[in-house]
Amino acid sequence: MSTPLSFQDIILCLLAYWKDQGCLVQQPYNIQVGAGTMNPATALRVLGPEPWNVVYVEPSIRPDDGRFGDNPNRMQMHHQLQVILKPDPGNPQERYLKSLEAIGIDPRQHDIRFVEDNWESPALGAWGLGWEVWLDGQEITQFTYFQQAGGQPLEPVSVEITYGLDRITLALQGLESVWSMEYGAGISYNDVLLASEIEHCRYYFEIADVEALKAVYDTYEREAIRCLEARLVFPAHDYNLKCSHLFNVLDTRGAIGVTERANYFRRMRNVARDVSALYIAQRQEQDYPLLQRGPGQEQQTDGQIQTGEPVSASAGPHPFVLEIGSEELPAADLTAALAQLRTAVPALLTDLRLDYDTVEVHGTPRRLVVFVPQLASRQTDLETVVKGPPASRAFDATGQPTPAALGFARSRGVAVTALQVVEDQAGRYVAAVVHETGRPAPEVLAEALPGCIAGLTFGKSMRWNATNVSYSRPLRWLVALYGPQVVPFTYAGVASGRTSRGLRPYDSPAIVIDDAANYARIMQEHSIVTSVEARQATITAAATALATRQGGRYRPDQALLDEVANLVEYPTVLCGRFEEHFLALPAEVLVAVMKKHQRYFPVYAPDGRLLPYFLTVRNGDAVHLDMVTTGNEQVLRARFADAEFFYKHDTQHPLADCVPRLATLTFQAKLGSMLDKIRRLEQLTPIVARLLGLTAEETAVAQRAAALSKADLATRMVVEMTSLQGIMGGHYARTSGEPEAVAAALAEQYNPVSTTRPGLALALADRLDSLLGLFAVGLAPRGSNDPFALRRAALGVIENLVANQTSFDVRQALAELAKLLPVASAAETIAAVLSFMHGRMEGVLRERGIPAAVVRAVLAEQGDNPHAASQAATALAEAITAPDWPEVLASYSRCVRITRQLHETLVVQPEAFTLPAEQTLWVAYQAAAASQDGTVAQLVAALRNLVPAITIFFIDVLVMDEDLAVRNNRLALLQHIASLPKGIVDLSCLEGF
Amino acid sequence: MSTPLSFQDIILCLLAYWKDQGCLVQQPYNIQVGAGTMNPATALRVLGPEPWNVVYVEPSIRPDDGRFGDNPNRMQMHHQLQVILKPDPGNPQERYLKSLEAIGIDPRQHDIRFVEDNWESPALGAWGLGWEVWLDGQEITQFTYFQQAGGQPLEPVSVEITYGLDRITLALQGLESVWSMEYGAGISYNDVLLASEIEHCRYYFEIADVEALKAVYDTYEREAIRCLEARLVFPAHDYNLKCSHLFNVLDTRGAIGVTERANYFRRMRNVARDVSALYIAQRQEQDYPLLQRGPGQEQQTDGQIQTGEPVSASAGPHPFVLEIGSEELPAADLTAALAQLRTAVPALLTDLRLDYDTVEVHGTPRRLVVFVPQLASRQTDLETVVKGPPASRAFDATGQPTPAALGFARSRGVAVTALQVVEDQAGRYVAAVVHETGRPAPEVLAEALPGCIAGLTFGKSMRWNATNVSYSRPLRWLVALYGPQVVPFTYAGVASGRTSRGLRPYDSPAIVIDDAANYARIMQEHSIVTSVEARQATITAAATALATRQGGRYRPDQALLDEVANLVEYPTVLCGRFEEHFLALPAEVLVAVMKKHQRYFPVYAPDGRLLPYFLTVRNGDAVHLDMVTTGNEQVLRARFADAEFFYKHDTQHPLADCVPRLATLTFQAKLGSMLDKIRRLEQLTPIVARLLGLTAEETAVAQRAAALSKADLATRMVVEMTSLQGIMGGHYARTSGEPEAVAAALAEQYNPVSTTRPGLALALADRLDSLLGLFAVGLAPRGSNDPFALRRAALGVIENLVANQTSFDVRQALAELAKLLPVASAAETIAAVLSFMHGRMEGVLRERGIPAAVVRAVLAEQGDNPHAASQAATALAEAITAPDWPEVLASYSRCVRITRQLHETLVVQPEAFTLPAEQTLWVAYQAAAASQDGTVAQLVAALRNLVPAITIFFIDVLVMDEDLAVRNNRLALLQHIASLPKGIVDLSCLEGF
Repeated sequence: MSTPLSFQDIILCLLAYWKDQGCLVQQPYNIQVGAGTMNPATALRVLGPEPWNVVYVEPSIRPDDGRFGDNPNRMQMHHQLQVILKPDPGNPQERYLKSLEAIGIDPRQHDIRFVEDNWESPALGAWGLGWEVWLDGQEITQFTYFQQAGGQPLEPVSVEITYGLDRITLALQGLESVWSMEYGAGISYNDVLLASEIEHCRYYFEIADVEALKAVYDTYEREAIRCLEARLVFPAHDYNLKCSHLFNVLDTRGAIGVTERANYFRRMRNVARDVSALYIAQRQEQDYPLLQRGPGQEQQTDGQIQTGEPVSASAGPHPFVLEIGSEELPAADLTAALAQLRTAVPALLTDLRLDYDTVEVHGTPRRLVVFVPQLASRQTDLETVVKGPPASRAFDATGQPTPAALGFARSRGVAVTALQVVEDQAGRYVAAVVHETGRPAPEVLAEALPGCIAGLTFGKSMRWNATNVSYSRPLRWLVALYGPQVVPFTYAGVASGRTSRGLRPYDSPAIVIDDAANYARIMQEHSIVTSVEARQATITAAATALATRQGGRYRPDQALLDEVANLVEYPTVLCGRFEEHFLALPAEVLVAVMKKHQRYFPVYAPDGRLLPYFLTVRNGDAVHLDMVTTGNEQVLRARFADAEFFYKHDTQHPLADCVPRLATLTFQAKLGSMLDKIRRLEQLTPIVARLLGLTAEETAVAQRAAALSKADLATRMVVEMTSLQGIMGGHYARTSGEPEAVAAALAEQYNPVSTTRPGLALALADRLDSLLGLFAVGLAPRGSNDPFALRRAALGVIENLVANQTSFDVRQALAELAKLLPVASAAETIAAVLSFMHGRMEGVLRERGIPAAVVRAVLAEQGDNPHAASQAATALAEAITAPDWPEVLASYSRCVRITRQLHETLVVQPEAFTLPAEQTLWVAYQAAAASQDGTVAQLVAALRNLVPAITIFFIDVLVMDEDLAVRNNRLALLQHIASLPKGIVDLSCLEGF
Repeated sequence: MSTPLSFQDIILCLLAYWKDQGCLVQQPYNIQVGAGTMNPATALRVLGPEPWNVVYVEPSIRPDDGRFGDNPNRMQMHHQLQVILKPDPGNPQERYLKSLEAIGIDPRQHDIRFVEDNWESPALGAWGLGWEVWLDGQEITQFTYFQQAGGQPLEPVSVEITYGLDRITLALQGLESVWSMEYGAGISYNDVLLASEIEHCRYYFEIADVEALKAVYDTYEREAIRCLEARLVFPAHDYNLKCSHLFNVLDTRGAIGVTERANYFRRMRNVARDVSALYIAQRQEQDYPLLQRGPGQEQQTDGQIQTGEPVSASAGPHPFVLEIGSEELPAADLTAALAQLRTAVPALLTDLRLDYDTVEVHGTPRRLVVFVPQLASRQTDLETVVKGPPASRAFDATGQPTPAALGFARSRGVAVTALQVVEDQAGRYVAAVVHETGRPAPEVLAEALPGCIAGLTFGKSMRWNATNVSYSRPLRWLVALYGPQVVPFTYAGVASGRTSRGLRPYDSPAIVIDDAANYARIMQEHSIVTSVEARQATITAAATALATRQGGRYRPDQALLDEVANLVEYPTVLCGRFEEHFLALPAEVLVAVMKKHQRYFPVYAPDGRLLPYFLTVRNGDAVHLDMVTTGNEQVLRARFADAEFFYKHDTQHPLADCVPRLATLTFQAKLGSMLDKIRRLEQLTPIVARLLGLTAEETAVAQRAAALSKADLATRMVVEMTSLQGIMGGHYARTSGEPEAVAAALAEQYNPVSTTRPGLALALADRLDSLLGLFAVGLAPRGSNDPFALRRAALGVIENLVANQTSFDVRQALAELAKLLPVASAAETIAAVLSFMHGRMEGVLRERGIPAAVVRAVLAEQGDNPHAASQAATALAEAITAPDWPEVLASYSRCVRITRQLHETLVVQPEAFTLPAEQTLWVAYQAAAASQDGTVAQLVAALRNLVPAITIFFIDVLVMDEDLAVRNNRLALLQHIASLPKGIVDLSCLEGF
């Protein structure tokens, strides 16, 4: 195609394409929606059993994507083309790729990739699995298999294909910005849309009246509920969409805090759930009218399913190959599946009594491969002894077999003469030795392989067709060959055969495997690198070479390499560049954009600074690599432009100016805004600093950091990339002229381990405030439900203190904090938080291998001081391994047990001791007490030293003397000894006490 | 086309058609709108000078069109296809008709008509002129030349073409209901939309929360205003659209009264105005980016403009024809233009000194024709005498002409020897007799005809192209022939020529007229009936015959005939039928639907009842008349089904049940709801009845009627067809079992003249309540602004009383009413209402030819009693024509003038009269006073009788006697005489007083 299509032509062309595929052509919805999914033509029609194939355009409004027209491809309004195929026609990806060809995108000239992207809409109560489709690094389509909508599981599953029309046109027209594209009729996209874009941004970000729109939200939610009460599905859905848009506007205005957000989502989800349930009920009442439709709506197959061939055993071992072909597996699912197969297949073959030499397991995003070079053609034979009736009943007096023996022999397929008599504890029996001849390998494999595949588990699985089988992504073909022979079976509606598929850029040609022996060679011939390790090695080598060519360094990043290698079947690394001026942005920002958004490797100069290059991997060969490179550069330019937009905006004013804006960001309804939170932190941090023993100077730094601590949440950069919170706070603090120490404390406030003392004070104050505050308002985690990540907060406190080897009395800090909270926090709340933290601490210590009893012993006395508890636990765990420990503990426990009933603390009167053993023990006790420094080591040493004196004491002295004074004096002595571990450990928790 | 297109195919086909015509293809708007016009792609883009051609679909929401899916073609959501052509390409109608052919509508198989329909959007501050396009009687398209939008005049004018996609599909698929159409992909329209349709109806009619949505309206209006303050055009427009939708919902819920409605419209219009002004200002600031565009956006001509031919005079008279070809003129405009031409053309020809025999004027919707069978080829010659310098300065002493004479002669083009000396009152001058030879007819006509066309005036005119000429509809061709010769001129950008156009159903072929003499024959050959009378006669004859064939009667209806004959160029009458069961509906309803909506003639049985037939006129011949008939029957079926829907709904409950619903129908904010109003009328009507002297029984009837008087406003039938208000009240009263007298009073409550006395009481009470109430809240008419039609209300009171010859004291009624109003109405308010009514009364009487002075005289005394005033005015106007009237008046006026200064009323003491003339006049006065019955006749007779006595009195008696007692007694006598007309007329107002 020489002249690229205009925007409007692309739309008309895609509508025509999908119409020809049997889709109904509908119109955009007449309510502002964030996505075509919300149009009832999707949101409702995917529910229930009726078939539904539809295509429509959906101008989609996402206020917070607004960039005032300053970004090349990010706008508050973008255009989606939405396709729903229900049920899955069996080849939706191929249909989709053909649609791209229809508008002029040649797969050989580009890099088209299916990159895992699971979709979830908290507001719609919906989720699905699928991918982003990348065109030269640019996301141009979302491809999703809906699993649930409106809280309802979907059956059949719908395939949703959502094209980003603007980005596709941008790529096709080969321009740098959507604003210079042709819309149609000689008019530019800019002419049609730019003024409206800029104005809507201004409205959403600067003008919208927060309180008034919140009131409208409430009204519209009430209308939705009133509609539901009147059993009106569509009007209720409409109002929910309006609520959703209002929510988005409020959110963009920065008016919605974390807790409020969760609350709004809950409200929208509730309506969506009721709408969906009602819709399904109504369709059912109408007997599902569309269920009767014939043509165009039935499940179609892609001609791939192959019938099995006759099975016959052949002599000698043969190679075996199983290829499970599917749509693109997520990188992590691929890794997981390979690991599972490496364990499961050998176990299976052993179980099946099929001898083999080795099992090779490989995989690419589209195929899992099991290759066994030498697999026996038959199972090994088996001999088993089966018990029959008692010998006494098996033979009559004459030694002739009775009918019981005859029946038993017949049922086991042996001659009655072959029965043997065996004897065990229970008596004498007849027994048959059953000889089982091994069955041919193909036969047993055909039976076993479905179960083998079914045994694979993934982080998230999905259903896609009427078999309701679950797998990571739709399973589309199965190659199963024993030598030249197909191992015939069917799984998830797919019959095994000998036809594999080639690379996507080559249009996934059918590849016929004549013999398992040739599998590897054929794959190689088709440029498919099945080995993960081989792909990783190729990438590493090429990336290193390309970086070096630019005078830079490729810095290995195994996590990214793992992912990238699993996104391709044939890796070709390319090096792109970006404009140097972007290097003015903080490196963390650039790296986050490259790695997180684009899966690119940054290129570093020898001095560690970034160079204006990136490395990425194409799926396929080097044909037209220049176009792919240009496309990827384009994408990165837009991403960086976005970051630059945020950065410029954020650095126009000092960071401190963001603080007042936190007033509109709700932390939690009863706990106030984020501004309220940092006001509290300003008071709490000095208290924490005092408890930590910070200097006055450090305390001042910590307090200033507290005053700025959440300010970056109101910056655009952090709103956009939450992972940069804290980091950006540090950056912006520096650009605002704050002291370096303050910036450092800010930068590390979310880190698991603080490296500065002011940073530690702030991090602790922040987490404790969240914990006590949210517990106080009744939002403690329940079960697996921990929406405010309080478990992580608690662990953050514990692990940070442990790592910093810093003692800290959490209880005391909470008591001080309680006075600052805007809600009453009773002593029980503090107790609940501490108990919650003990729980986390227990987990931490147990994971370190500390015995449960030791943990209990430590936490009972030092649970409120994580570092101290940690040290004590280690020491105690060590101590109890000493050979004489049982003796030490027994000795101590005698002192405890005899004094346990006392309700008062008795006073020792040394002059009243009458026996030497008393006197000796008293002296020994005084030495022990004097030696204590609060450590377990000193405690145990002291107890050990006391053993002889205690032993003699109990031999020589009758504690329970009739004279009360004498008795009490002896008990007082023992009570003192029993109290020695007080505040360190509670030895009564230990075994053997 | 054998298989009709599906709904989606029609959409795609039309989009492709208009794309090929150079239109941008946009998407529907993502806000609920009532029409595609509201999409900013129209609402804003038609503003300012920039070209703009666009096409898009717009699902349009009109809640009150909702019929719960029960109507074959009326829904709360219909689909528009909107096309904007800016500027007018010169042939938009032809382009439109081609688009119909593109989707398979053959103009020879149907009746396609352009029926006047001017468009106005009070909410958008917009209006335009154009048509509904009818396809076999069904409105399928709105075709409008926008003249104004957002209160801004438009230059250039935009052509708006709005297809009703649903109805077009219905017609094309030949089905009875949209619900059985195919939408696409084998799925019916019903499958896609019916459930949503029904539910949205339920929401709009039954569920929507009125108060909550009113509050949202207020919020959204504030947001719009805040956006405008921030200079944000598009977001402000969006909010105005949302307001508009909310208004529609509230309206459908019956929550908006007449006054409130005007108020809402004003609010929306204000925002629309500001949005438009701001948009234009912004585009100007940007230097109108689209003004630079070249291809596809410039004005195109249709190749019709013809260049003139050389003009030469030819001997002898020749026929002349002028044909002004235009797009379809409204019926009334055609009538008006013909009348104007009948006067203007003869005057013009006379003025031009072109002799002619007769002037024939004809016309069809597409052409105005002036035909002069015999028109002189030249102007008649002219001789004029022109005065020159005084004779004394023109000739020297020797009699030789001076330079002054020579110069004069030269300037007038005569020989100096030809100068004559003439003498008049001022002296002697030289004079030239100038002989002006007549110029050729074509030459002078070419100069004069543009002015002649420009002189035509229409009720509403429009501009359409860059010449900014105004005409009823765009003028598209001009034929001007004098004999075989073109009379060359240009008007409104169109050059005259000899090419006319044929009938629309024949694709408007070009028709070349070789000679004016053949014009009539050629038109006839092309089946164009240029004579209005001929068309009317054809219709009448055919209608009569067709009605008779069905055993019925065609009842002449001149107004409808006038209109119908002016909608076609070639009338063919057809008779359609409808299902008999519709006859169960009230005849008024059926007739209103047939006449008003469809311009059909009903067919009556001999006994006056309706028969299930209708007569309508097709433009064109009888080819495929069956299809046209079927189409028209279809349309009427849908219309009647609609009426039936209303009727059934309305008669489910007694009329009285509607009354409480009036509580949500605001009459006026301060005056309360319509329910409040009828509660007042229930109290006021008996009072009016008492003043009218009704019996107790009549009074009871009137009061019951008052209690039900506005109930029908809450019925669906009246909501839909306001013209049936009152009539339906009467009907529904009967079906509810109310007494016939009550029904009759209700039925006639809005009639100008009441025929029953209870009806009169109610009608008066209703109008007086509106008058006093609205005056009291400051809503009296101002200038031409009379939104509540209070002028008509006042006239209604006056004319009804006059027609019923019933005396009635309006002032007294108002005084009683004042006590019932919820707002204070001071004496000044009553005075203002009365003064307002006097004004109307004055108008009424003046129109009847009563002299202004007489009117003043009467109103001064009886203005509060219209009937009495009317009678008095007639009598007084008669009286003053009597020969002796000046004497009678002079005589009476002497009595008045001499007593005018008195501030007190003196007492006559008959015994104190001393002179006979006194005594005589006293006696005469007593007789006169005794004869008075309040009529002008008796008054005038009495005054006449008094003349002799008054005359003698003033001769014999010195009124101003020095004796105070004597003087006062004489003044008392004259004062009594002066007071005789009191309460009848104020004779001092008359001329000659």
